[in-house]
Amino acid sequence: MSSKPMQEKQVPVILSRQIVAKSRLLRIEAIDLKFSNGELRQYERMQGSGRGAVLVVPLLDENTMLLVREYAAGLHNYQLGFPKGLIDPGETPEQAAQRELKEEIGYGAKHFTLMKSVSMAPAFFSANMTLFIGEGLFAEKLEGDEPEPLELVPWPIDAVDELLAQPDFTEARSVAALLLMQRWRSQQSK
Amino acid sequence: MSSKPMQEKQVPVILSRQIVAKSRLLRIEAIDLKFSNGELRQYERMQGSGRGAVLVVPLLDENTMLLVREYAAGLHNYQLGFPKGLIDPGETPEQAAQRELKEEIGYGAKHFTLMKSVSMAPAFFSANMTLFIGEGLFAEKLEGDEPEPLELVPWPIDAVDELLAQPDFTEARSVAALLLMQRWRSQQSK
Repeated sequence: MSSKPMQEKQVPVILSRQIVAKSRLLRIEAIDLKFSNGELRQYERMQGSGRGAVLVVPLLDENTMLLVREYAAGLHNYQLGFPKGLIDPGETPEQAAQRELKEEIGYGAKHFTLMKSVSMAPAFFSANMTLFIGEGLFAEKLEGDEPEPLELVPWPIDAVDELLAQPDFTEARSVAALLLMQRWRSQQSK
Repeated sequence: MSSKPMQEKQVPVILSRQIVAKSRLLRIEAIDLKFSNGELRQYERMQGSGRGAVLVVPLLDENTMLLVREYAAGLHNYQLGFPKGLIDPGETPEQAAQRELKEEIGYGAKHFTLMKSVSMAPAFFSANMTLFIGEGLFAEKLEGDEPEPLELVPWPIDAVDELLAQPDFTEARSVAALLLMQRWRSQQSK
Protein backbone atom coordinates (compact mmCIF):
# COMPACT_ATOMS: atom_id res chain seq x y z
CA MET A 1 0.00 0.00 0.00
CA SER A 2 1.49 3.33 -1.01
CA SER A 3 -0.38 5.38 1.56
CA LYS A 4 1.43 6.75 4.55
CA PRO A 5 0.51 5.88 8.10
CA MET A 6 -0.54 8.65 10.45
CA GLN A 7 2.47 10.64 11.52
CA GLU A 8 3.10 12.24 14.85
CA LYS A 9 3.41 15.73 13.53
CA GLN A 10 4.49 18.48 15.88
CA VAL A 11 1.32 20.46 16.61
CA PRO A 12 1.62 24.25 16.74
CA VAL A 13 2.36 25.81 20.11
CA ILE A 14 -0.53 27.78 21.60
CA LEU A 15 1.06 31.07 22.69
CA SER A 16 -2.11 32.55 24.14
CA ARG A 17 -5.84 31.98 24.19
CA GLN A 18 -8.69 34.29 24.96
CA ILE A 19 -12.50 34.09 24.96
CA VAL A 20 -13.49 36.82 22.49
CA ALA A 21 -17.25 36.26 22.39
CA LYS A 22 -19.70 34.39 24.55
CA SER A 23 -23.41 33.64 24.45
CA ARG A 24 -25.74 31.51 26.55
CA LEU A 25 -24.64 28.30 24.79
CA LEU A 26 -21.48 29.02 22.86
CA ARG A 27 -18.05 30.51 23.33
CA ILE A 28 -15.63 31.72 20.68
CA GLU A 29 -11.96 31.49 21.55
CA ALA A 30 -9.09 33.23 19.75
CA ILE A 31 -5.79 31.37 19.91
CA ASP A 32 -2.36 32.65 18.92
CA LEU A 33 -0.34 29.85 17.37
CA LYS A 34 3.27 29.30 16.42
CA PHE A 35 3.72 26.59 13.79
CA SER A 36 6.80 24.36 13.81
CA ASN A 37 8.25 26.39 10.91
CA GLY A 38 8.00 29.58 12.96
CA GLU A 39 4.85 30.98 11.28
CA LEU A 40 2.55 32.90 13.62
CA ARG A 41 -1.23 32.91 13.12
CA GLN A 42 -4.35 33.76 15.05
CA TYR A 43 -7.21 31.26 14.70
CA GLU A 44 -10.73 31.35 16.09
CA ARG A 45 -12.48 28.27 17.33
CA MET A 46 -15.83 27.49 18.96
CA GLN A 47 -16.43 25.81 22.23
CA GLY A 48 -19.75 24.06 22.55
CA SER A 49 -21.07 21.95 25.38
CA GLY A 50 -18.13 19.54 25.14
CA ARG A 51 -20.61 16.72 25.81
CA GLY A 52 -20.40 14.84 22.55
CA ALA A 53 -23.37 13.71 20.49
CA VAL A 54 -24.88 10.59 19.00
CA LEU A 55 -26.81 9.73 15.85
CA VAL A 56 -28.68 6.49 15.16
CA VAL A 57 -29.78 4.86 11.91
CA PRO A 58 -32.81 2.89 13.20
CA LEU A 59 -33.65 -0.21 11.17
CA LEU A 60 -37.32 -1.05 11.70
CA ASP A 61 -37.24 -4.23 9.63
CA GLU A 62 -35.31 -5.77 6.75
CA ASN A 63 -36.55 -3.14 4.34
CA THR A 64 -37.23 0.00 6.35
CA MET A 65 -35.19 2.63 8.13
CA LEU A 66 -36.66 5.50 10.12
CA LEU A 67 -35.86 9.17 9.71
CA VAL A 68 -37.24 12.32 11.27
CA ARG A 69 -38.08 15.72 9.85
CA GLU A 70 -37.20 18.50 12.28
CA TYR A 71 -36.95 22.28 12.28
CA ALA A 72 -33.34 23.46 11.80
CA ALA A 73 -32.81 27.02 13.00
CA GLY A 74 -29.49 27.48 11.17
CA LEU A 75 -31.16 26.97 7.79
CA HIS A 76 -34.64 28.08 9.01
CA ASN A 77 -36.34 25.15 7.33
CA TYR A 78 -37.28 21.54 8.03
CA GLN A 79 -34.54 18.97 7.52
CA LEU A 80 -34.76 15.22 7.02
CA GLY A 81 -32.19 13.17 8.90
CA PHE A 82 -31.56 10.47 11.45
CA PRO A 83 -32.45 10.81 15.15
CA LYS A 84 -29.64 12.48 17.07
CA GLY A 85 -28.83 14.49 20.15
CA LEU A 86 -26.32 15.46 22.81
CA ILE A 87 -25.01 13.00 25.39
CA ASP A 88 -26.31 13.91 28.85
CA PRO A 89 -23.88 14.05 31.80
CA GLY A 90 -23.24 10.53 33.10
CA GLU A 91 -24.53 8.78 29.98
CA THR A 92 -22.49 6.51 27.73
CA PRO A 93 -22.89 7.19 24.01
CA GLU A 94 -25.04 4.03 23.73
CA GLN A 95 -27.30 5.14 26.58
CA ALA A 96 -27.72 8.51 24.90
CA ALA A 97 -28.54 6.76 21.62
CA GLN A 98 -31.21 4.68 23.37
CA ARG A 99 -32.76 7.74 25.03
CA GLU A 100 -32.74 9.88 21.90
CA LEU A 101 -34.46 7.10 19.93
CA LYS A 102 -37.21 6.84 22.51
CA GLU A 103 -37.64 10.62 22.66
CA GLU A 104 -37.50 11.32 18.94
CA ILE A 105 -39.17 8.33 17.28
CA GLY A 106 -40.89 6.43 20.10
CA TYR A 107 -38.79 3.28 19.74
CA GLY A 108 -35.95 1.71 21.69
CA ALA A 109 -33.40 -0.63 20.10
CA LYS A 110 -32.26 -4.00 21.43
CA HIS A 111 -28.90 -3.76 19.72
CA PHE A 112 -26.61 -0.91 18.76
CA THR A 113 -23.66 -1.23 16.36
CA LEU A 114 -21.07 1.53 16.54
CA MET A 115 -20.09 2.57 13.02
CA LYS A 116 -17.70 5.48 13.50
CA SER A 117 -17.03 8.60 15.54
CA VAL A 118 -16.97 11.70 13.37
CA SER A 119 -16.03 15.33 13.82
CA MET A 120 -17.60 18.43 12.35
CA ALA A 121 -15.41 21.12 10.80
CA PRO A 122 -12.45 20.26 13.07
CA ALA A 123 -10.73 23.48 12.03
CA PHE A 124 -13.27 25.32 14.19
CA PHE A 125 -14.97 22.84 16.50
CA SER A 126 -14.08 20.07 18.87
CA ALA A 127 -17.56 18.55 18.52
CA ASN A 128 -17.63 14.78 18.26
CA MET A 129 -20.56 12.54 17.21
CA THR A 130 -20.80 8.75 17.46
CA LEU A 131 -22.78 7.12 14.65
CA PHE A 132 -24.76 3.95 15.47
CA ILE A 133 -27.05 1.48 13.77
CA GLY A 134 -30.04 0.53 15.94
CA GLU A 135 -31.71 -2.85 15.44
CA GLY A 136 -34.42 -4.86 17.18
CA LEU A 137 -36.75 -1.90 17.60
CA PHE A 138 -39.52 -1.98 20.21
CA ALA A 139 -42.13 0.71 20.85
CA GLU A 140 -41.31 2.88 23.87
CA LYS A 141 -41.84 6.60 24.12
CA LEU A 142 -39.93 9.04 26.32
CA GLU A 143 -40.81 12.71 26.57
CA GLY A 144 -38.13 14.90 25.04
CA ASP A 145 -37.75 18.65 25.04
CA GLU A 146 -38.84 19.15 21.45
CA PRO A 147 -41.14 22.14 20.88
CA GLU A 148 -43.32 20.00 18.60
CA PRO A 149 -43.55 16.29 17.73
CA LEU A 150 -41.03 15.31 15.07
CA GLU A 151 -42.43 13.95 11.84
CA LEU A 152 -41.48 10.26 11.58
CA VAL A 153 -40.45 9.31 8.04
CA PRO A 154 -40.08 5.61 7.18
CA TRP A 155 -37.82 5.08 4.18
CA PRO A 156 -36.94 1.94 2.15
CA ILE A 157 -33.39 0.96 3.10
CA ASP A 158 -32.48 0.35 -0.53
CA ALA A 159 -33.85 3.67 -1.83
CA VAL A 160 -30.50 5.37 -1.26
CA ASP A 161 -30.38 7.39 -4.46
CA GLU A 162 -33.87 8.73 -3.79
CA LEU A 163 -32.90 9.76 -0.27
CA LEU A 164 -29.67 11.41 -1.43
CA ALA A 165 -31.71 13.34 -3.98
CA GLN A 166 -34.16 14.71 -1.41
CA PRO A 167 -33.53 18.46 -1.17
CA ASP A 168 -34.02 18.43 2.61
CA PHE A 169 -31.63 15.52 3.26
CA THR A 170 -28.42 17.53 3.43
CA GLU A 171 -26.62 17.08 6.72
CA ALA A 172 -23.17 15.61 6.12
CA ARG A 173 -23.35 13.48 9.27
CA SER A 174 -26.65 11.90 8.16
CA VAL A 175 -25.23 11.32 4.66
CA ALA A 176 -22.13 9.67 6.17
CA ALA A 177 -24.28 7.52 8.49
CA LEU A 178 -26.53 6.40 5.62
CA LEU A 179 -23.59 5.30 3.47
CA LEU A 180 -21.69 3.68 6.37
CA MET A 181 -24.84 1.69 7.16
CA GLN A 182 -25.15 0.58 3.52
CA ARG A 183 -21.50 -0.46 3.54
CA TRP A 184 -22.00 -2.39 6.79
CA ARG A 185 -25.05 -4.16 5.30
CA SER A 186 -23.25 -5.20 2.15
CA GLN A 187 -20.39 -6.58 4.25
CA GLN A 188 -22.85 -8.48 6.48
CA SER A 189 -24.45 -10.16 3.49
CA LYS A 190 -21.17 -11.43 2.06
CA MET B 1 -42.43 3.25 -2.10
CA SER B 2 -43.80 3.82 1.36
CA SER B 3 -41.73 6.91 2.09
CA LYS B 4 -43.30 10.31 2.11
CA PRO B 5 -42.28 13.09 -0.19
CA MET B 6 -40.97 16.31 1.28
CA GLN B 7 -43.78 18.32 2.77
CA GLU B 8 -44.15 22.05 2.85
CA LYS B 9 -44.29 22.34 6.59
CA GLN B 10 -45.08 25.68 8.14
CA VAL B 11 -41.77 26.96 9.50
CA PRO B 12 -41.82 28.68 12.91
CA VAL B 13 -42.29 32.45 12.92
CA ILE B 14 -39.23 34.44 13.95
CA LEU B 15 -40.55 36.90 16.54
CA SER B 16 -37.23 38.63 17.14
CA ARG B 17 -33.55 38.20 16.43
CA GLN B 18 -30.51 39.68 18.09
CA ILE B 19 -26.74 39.35 17.77
CA VAL B 20 -25.68 38.18 21.23
CA ALA B 21 -21.97 37.61 20.62
CA LYS B 22 -19.56 38.62 17.89
CA SER B 23 -15.91 37.96 17.12
CA ARG B 24 -13.65 38.83 14.20
CA LEU B 25 -15.02 35.96 12.09
CA LEU B 26 -18.21 34.72 13.69
CA ARG B 27 -21.51 36.00 14.99
CA ILE B 28 -23.95 34.27 17.30
CA GLU B 29 -27.60 35.19 16.87
CA ALA B 30 -30.42 34.48 19.33
CA ILE B 31 -33.82 34.07 17.70
CA ASP B 32 -37.20 33.94 19.41
CA LEU B 33 -39.46 31.48 17.62
CA LYS B 34 -43.15 30.64 17.65
CA PHE B 35 -43.87 27.15 16.33
CA SER B 36 -47.09 26.42 14.43
CA ASN B 37 -48.52 24.75 17.57
CA GLY B 38 -47.99 27.94 19.57
CA GLU B 39 -44.83 26.80 21.44
CA LEU B 40 -42.32 29.57 22.09
CA ARG B 41 -38.56 28.86 22.14
CA GLN B 42 -35.32 30.75 21.98
CA TYR B 43 -32.64 29.22 19.75
CA GLU B 44 -29.07 30.27 19.10
CA ARG B 45 -27.46 30.00 15.70
CA MET B 46 -24.11 30.93 14.19
CA GLN B 47 -23.50 33.15 11.27
CA GLY B 48 -20.30 32.48 9.40
CA SER B 49 -18.99 34.09 6.25
CA GLY B 50 -22.08 33.06 4.28
CA ARG B 51 -19.79 32.32 1.34
CA GLY B 52 -20.24 28.57 1.04
CA ALA B 53 -17.44 26.06 0.75
CA VAL B 54 -16.21 23.30 -1.53
CA LEU B 55 -14.48 19.96 -1.04
CA VAL B 56 -12.86 17.86 -3.78
CA VAL B 57 -12.00 14.15 -3.94
CA PRO B 58 -9.05 14.30 -6.38
CA LEU B 59 -8.51 11.10 -8.39
CA LEU B 60 -4.87 11.00 -9.51
CA ASP B 61 -5.24 7.80 -11.52
CA GLU B 62 -7.38 4.66 -11.61
CA ASN B 63 -6.08 3.52 -8.25
CA THR B 64 -5.12 6.60 -6.28
CA MET B 65 -6.91 9.45 -4.58
CA LEU B 66 -5.18 12.36 -2.88
CA LEU B 67 -5.76 13.58 0.66
CA VAL B 68 -4.10 16.22 2.81
CA ARG B 69 -3.11 16.30 6.43
CA GLU B 70 -3.69 19.73 7.97
CA TYR B 71 -3.70 21.32 11.40
CA ALA B 72 -7.23 21.61 12.81
CA ALA B 73 -7.47 24.21 15.57
CA GLY B 74 -10.83 22.97 16.90
CA LEU B 75 -9.32 19.60 17.80
CA HIS B 76 -5.75 20.94 18.13
CA ASN B 77 -4.30 18.08 16.11
CA TYR B 78 -3.58 17.15 12.49
CA GLN B 79 -6.49 15.79 10.51
CA LEU B 80 -6.55 13.75 7.32
CA GLY B 81 -9.17 14.76 4.78
CA PHE B 82 -9.87 15.97 1.27
CA PRO B 83 -8.82 19.41 0.00
CA LYS B 84 -11.42 22.04 0.81
CA GLY B 85 -11.97 25.71 1.37
CA LEU B 86 -14.29 28.69 1.22
CA ILE B 87 -15.66 30.09 -2.03
CA ASP B 88 -14.15 33.51 -2.73
CA PRO B 89 -16.44 36.40 -3.75
CA GLY B 90 -17.24 36.14 -7.46
CA GLU B 91 -16.22 32.50 -7.78
CA THR B 92 -18.49 29.66 -8.81
CA PRO B 93 -18.21 26.54 -6.64
CA GLU B 94 -16.29 24.82 -9.46
CA GLN B 95 -13.83 27.72 -9.76
CA ALA B 96 -13.27 27.59 -6.02
CA ALA B 97 -12.71 23.82 -6.25
CA GLN B 98 -10.10 24.37 -8.98
CA ARG B 99 -8.29 27.05 -6.97
CA GLU B 100 -8.29 25.10 -3.72
CA LEU B 101 -6.86 22.05 -5.47
CA LYS B 102 -4.00 24.10 -6.92
CA GLU B 103 -3.33 25.77 -3.58
CA GLU B 104 -3.57 22.73 -1.36
CA ILE B 105 -2.19 19.85 -3.45
CA GLY B 106 -0.47 21.50 -6.43
CA TYR B 107 -2.80 20.00 -9.04
CA GLY B 108 -5.62 21.29 -11.17
CA ALA B 109 -8.40 19.04 -12.50
CA LYS B 110 -9.70 18.89 -16.08
CA HIS B 111 -13.10 17.67 -15.00
CA PHE B 112 -15.25 18.14 -11.90
CA THR B 113 -18.30 16.04 -11.06
CA LEU B 114 -20.71 17.52 -8.53
CA MET B 115 -21.76 14.83 -6.07
CA LYS B 116 -23.94 16.65 -3.54
CA SER B 117 -24.32 19.84 -1.54
CA VAL B 118 -24.26 19.17 2.19
CA SER B 119 -24.94 21.16 5.33
CA MET B 120 -23.22 21.02 8.69
CA ALA B 121 -25.30 20.87 11.87
CA PRO B 122 -28.20 22.77 10.26
CA ALA B 123 -29.77 23.29 13.67
CA PHE B 124 -27.03 25.86 14.34
CA PHE B 125 -25.38 26.81 11.05
CA SER B 126 -26.35 27.85 7.57
CA ALA B 127 -22.99 26.67 6.21
CA ASN B 128 -23.19 24.84 2.89
CA MET B 129 -20.47 22.78 1.19
CA THR B 130 -20.47 21.40 -2.36
CA LEU B 131 -18.73 18.04 -2.75
CA PHE B 132 -16.93 17.33 -6.04
CA ILE B 133 -14.88 14.60 -7.66
CA GLY B 134 -11.87 15.98 -9.56
CA GLU B 135 -10.43 13.99 -12.48
CA GLY B 136 -7.78 14.54 -15.14
CA LEU B 137 -5.25 16.02 -12.75
CA PHE B 138 -2.39 18.17 -14.02
CA ALA B 139 0.42 19.70 -11.99
CA GLU B 140 -0.13 23.40 -11.26
CA LYS B 141 0.65 25.16 -8.02
CA LEU B 142 -1.01 28.30 -6.65
CA GLU B 143 0.12 30.00 -3.46
CA GLY B 144 -2.48 29.71 -0.72
CA ASP B 145 -2.62 31.31 2.70
CA GLU B 146 -1.63 28.18 4.62
CA PRO B 147 0.85 28.78 7.45
CA GLU B 148 2.79 25.68 6.39
CA PRO B 149 2.72 23.33 3.39
CA LEU B 150 0.03 20.67 3.72
CA GLU B 151 1.20 17.08 3.79
CA LEU B 152 0.00 15.36 0.62
CA VAL B 153 -1.24 11.82 1.30
CA PRO B 154 -1.88 9.51 -1.69
CA TRP B 155 -4.29 6.71 -0.80
CA PRO B 156 -5.46 3.63 -2.74
CA ILE B 157 -9.02 4.29 -3.89
CA ASP B 158 -10.11 0.81 -2.87
CA ALA B 159 -8.59 0.95 0.63
CA VAL B 160 -11.79 2.39 2.07
CA ASP B 161 -11.91 0.34 5.26
CA GLU B 162 -8.32 1.28 6.04
CA LEU B 163 -9.07 4.97 5.52
CA LEU B 164 -12.24 4.84 7.65
CA ALA B 165 -10.18 3.19 10.39
CA GLN B 166 -7.54 5.94 10.45
CA PRO B 167 -7.90 7.76 13.76
CA ASP B 168 -7.26 11.13 12.11
CA PHE B 169 -9.81 10.67 9.30
CA THR B 170 -12.88 11.88 11.17
CA GLU B 171 -14.57 14.78 9.46
CA ALA B 172 -18.13 13.84 8.52
CA ARG B 173 -17.95 15.79 5.26
CA SER B 174 -14.82 13.91 4.17
CA VAL B 175 -16.43 10.59 5.16
CA ALA B 176 -19.55 11.48 3.18
CA ALA B 177 -17.45 12.53 0.16
CA LEU B 178 -15.40 9.32 0.27
CA LEU B 179 -18.49 7.10 0.29
CA LEU B 180 -20.37 9.17 -2.31
CA MET B 181 -17.31 8.84 -4.59
CA GLN B 182 -17.24 5.06 -4.06
CA ARG B 183 -20.94 4.89 -4.86
CA TRP B 184 -20.44 6.97 -8.01
CA ARG B 185 -17.56 4.69 -9.09
CA SER B 186 -19.55 1.52 -8.63
CA GLN B 187 -22.42 3.02 -10.65
CA GLN B 188 -20.00 4.08 -13.41
CA SER B 189 -18.61 0.56 -13.72
CA LYS B 190 -22.04 -1.07 -14.14
